[in-house]
Amino acid sequence: MSSKPNAIVAQSGGPTAVINSSACGVIQQAMKSGKIGRVIGAINGILGVLNEELFDLSAEKPETIEALKQTPAAAIGSCRYKLKSLEESKADFERVLDVFKAHEIRYFFYAGGNDSMDTADKVNKLAADVGYELVCMGIPKTVDNDLAFTDHCPGYPSVAKYVATCAMEAGRDTDALYTTDTCTILEVMGRNAGWIAAATGLAHRSGEDAPHLVYMPEAAFSFDKFVNDVKEVLKEFGKVFIVAGEGLKDDKGQYVTADSGAFSKDSFGHVQLGGVADMLKAVIEKEVKIKARCNKLGTNQRSAMHFASLTDVNEAYMCGQMAVKHAMEGVNGKMVTLVREDRPKYKCTTGLAELRDVANGEKKVPKEFINDKGNHITDAMRDYIRPLVQGEAPVKIGEDGLPVFMRFERKPLEKKLPKYI
Amino acid sequence: MSSKPNAIVAQSGGPTAVINSSACGVIQQAMKSGKIGRVIGAINGILGVLNEELFDLSAEKPETIEALKQTPAAAIGSCRYKLKSLEESKADFERVLDVFKAHEIRYFFYAGGNDSMDTADKVNKLAADVGYELVCMGIPKTVDNDLAFTDHCPGYPSVAKYVATCAMEAGRDTDALYTTDTCTILEVMGRNAGWIAAATGLAHRSGEDAPHLVYMPEAAFSFDKFVNDVKEVLKEFGKVFIVAGEGLKDDKGQYVTADSGAFSKDSFGHVQLGGVADMLKAVIEKEVKIKARCNKLGTNQRSAMHFASLTDVNEAYMCGQMAVKHAMEGVNGKMVTLVREDRPKYKCTTGLAELRDVANGEKKVPKEFINDKGNHITDAMRDYIRPLVQGEAPVKIGEDGLPVFMRFERKPLEKKLPKYI
Repeated sequence: MSSKPNAIVAQSGGPTAVINSSACGVIQQAMKSGKIGRVIGAINGILGVLNEELFDLSAEKPETIEALKQTPAAAIGSCRYKLKSLEESKADFERVLDVFKAHEIRYFFYAGGNDSMDTADKVNKLAADVGYELVCMGIPKTVDNDLAFTDHCPGYPSVAKYVATCAMEAGRDTDALYTTDTCTILEVMGRNAGWIAAATGLAHRSGEDAPHLVYMPEAAFSFDKFVNDVKEVLKEFGKVFIVAGEGLKDDKGQYVTADSGAFSKDSFGHVQLGGVADMLKAVIEKEVKIKARCNKLGTNQRSAMHFASLTDVNEAYMCGQMAVKHAMEGVNGKMVTLVREDRPKYKCTTGLAELRDVANGEKKVPKEFINDKGNHITDAMRDYIRPLVQGEAPVKIGEDGLPVFMRFERKPLEKKLPKYI
Repeated sequence: MSSKPNAIVAQSGGPTAVINSSACGVIQQAMKSGKIGRVIGAINGILGVLNEELFDLSAEKPETIEALKQTPAAAIGSCRYKLKSLEESKADFERVLDVFKAHEIRYFFYAGGNDSMDTADKVNKLAADVGYELVCMGIPKTVDNDLAFTDHCPGYPSVAKYVATCAMEAGRDTDALYTTDTCTILEVMGRNAGWIAAATGLAHRSGEDAPHLVYMPEAAFSFDKFVNDVKEVLKEFGKVFIVAGEGLKDDKGQYVTADSGAFSKDSFGHVQLGGVADMLKAVIEKEVKIKARCNKLGTNQRSAMHFASLTDVNEAYMCGQMAVKHAMEGVNGKMVTLVREDRPKYKCTTGLAELRDVANGEKKVPKEFINDKGNHITDAMRDYIRPLVQGEAPVKIGEDGLPVFMRFERKPLEKKLPKYI
């Protein structure tokens, strides 16, 4: 084993089209830094650390690592295991450090959302408390785009480009068949933030272009207003295409689907939503008496590598790369952020934010991005999203006509510690 | 007005990514034939004929017509209006001929499924009966791929390429998060035929590649076997990715969702299905005690121009073109078919089938394309589908980073007849 310290890379939470691109940036930059021994992957995020299920990323073929840029989801493996406070999850945090020590890991690169930044921050604190030299760096990742201190989050531009295209395409389907299938409802992800729903608004270039109505959790949802909105669009265009974020809330902040029992909690304690589209369909068919169809892209929206934003792929890579560069310069306890330089021409550089600040922050769609009626986006939102969805990520196609994604060999590292739990 | 006879083009039924490519083939070939005056579009299929809502396709800009190849759904407009027998729908059929006569239409090009071929056949018969000189030609179109007498149907290869890619991508998402989100169910279209579900099988190249289980309406569905299948896959891979055709049936031929009340009839009298994925999810969560997620692509699968098969686009165009060429040669009452030439190298040419034969035929997934357990496809199916999904249709991207689709100006033709109904 090298005498140089090792680095560990982990991925957390819901996958995206580009979290692997960030991993690629970390791995390639770490390997060429000359300061890191092994680059280690933690299989399934923090679970892999706890269970000492690690593999040698630096032993993977260079072309496999390069192909991360063209592979969706989380090739190192992700999880939804949440560490709580240092007191409540003391054993877990100590185990993390034990595993780091056992494998001479001095760099921890963690790609995820605010829960993951929280974990990285606490691991960092504990390391400082016990005098274990460790550098913890966060890499932003969430299709929800709700992390604070960063202009946008890697993963979001790709889902934005894809759902906007889906709205455009299914909108043409509704155009074609409106004499019977008069209404289409596209349900998109976004538990508390409406960024994904908002992105579809870009597809509405003018006139009858779908979507006609876009509902985001940030704008209080009212069934009466909704029925009225639908009737108005019908009157103008004879058809209606609706986009609904999964987490629509009423003016009291309650999920509008809560009554239907169509929700449950995931292991992070988040309410798992579903059924917004089905509910709106039922309302429309009853109150407006037209046929409605539902499209629910589900996990396909966040894994749509085949039409990912090239801007996103490149920026995600840059975030991974910069996390390593900063770590080598002695930066610690920060998340890399994306910084939008002054207009007119879009240029994106990186900055840094405290892990703990990101952990406690949240960025919702601001008021000025939502129209007054609360049923569509404004030009300010269009200006925000347009540069992000530029370019199409290259897709390697196999002889069978389908995309080719990489898989790691995952050569396991020998376990050095007793089994945990 | 030209002294040459006019031609009418109509699109019918559920849209596809390439029905516009067929329309492009018809329009361009008709315009250069030198034998046709105006090429007329019937807005919303046969409804446009009945209501005399017609527009001058030959007055559209050439670049608009060319851009049909890159535009999904049905740009001329489609409908689900069904004409019944010549006796039952006598007034409708007579009206069709009246409109044709009023606009000097001697060529009727109709793109659709078997219901549309039935309509075209009956219009043709009536014209012959009353001595009105008319040529009726059918162009195959259906994502369901269930038309007889043709190797495959334009529209199917594109949905096949897209859903297989979606299975591959969402499969990677399940790979990444299987420790909590252990099961994903992708629901795809296919009322009576499992061709679309079958296509996703191509994504399973080997080992743990999704999908692990593919259910088609042609294989009798049993809940007990299903639960067993799921448990077996879980035992091997610790996760399970399932594809279900919307029209799964039990061994008595009854839709498995029929009890749940989750179906209704469309205006063609077809049972409109939905809820197969939700039902399977409920079964899995109850019987296998793992979390399952549902992805329902809905109309997005049939309109996914952004990742359409180039082979499909080209073949759809060829069908439109050949319909006109044959019509000019005096052929009448036929549908253009796609003919797969002898292997090894895939080559596709066209043939002809009687409209009435196509109207009465149906092509389901044959036994040899489904594995013995009824839960996946065979290599014979892979060999069938692989050549169809080759190539990616070009996509024109606008400055906003999203696809650009055409719209017709739809310059209306002056109405010459009294209002109908």
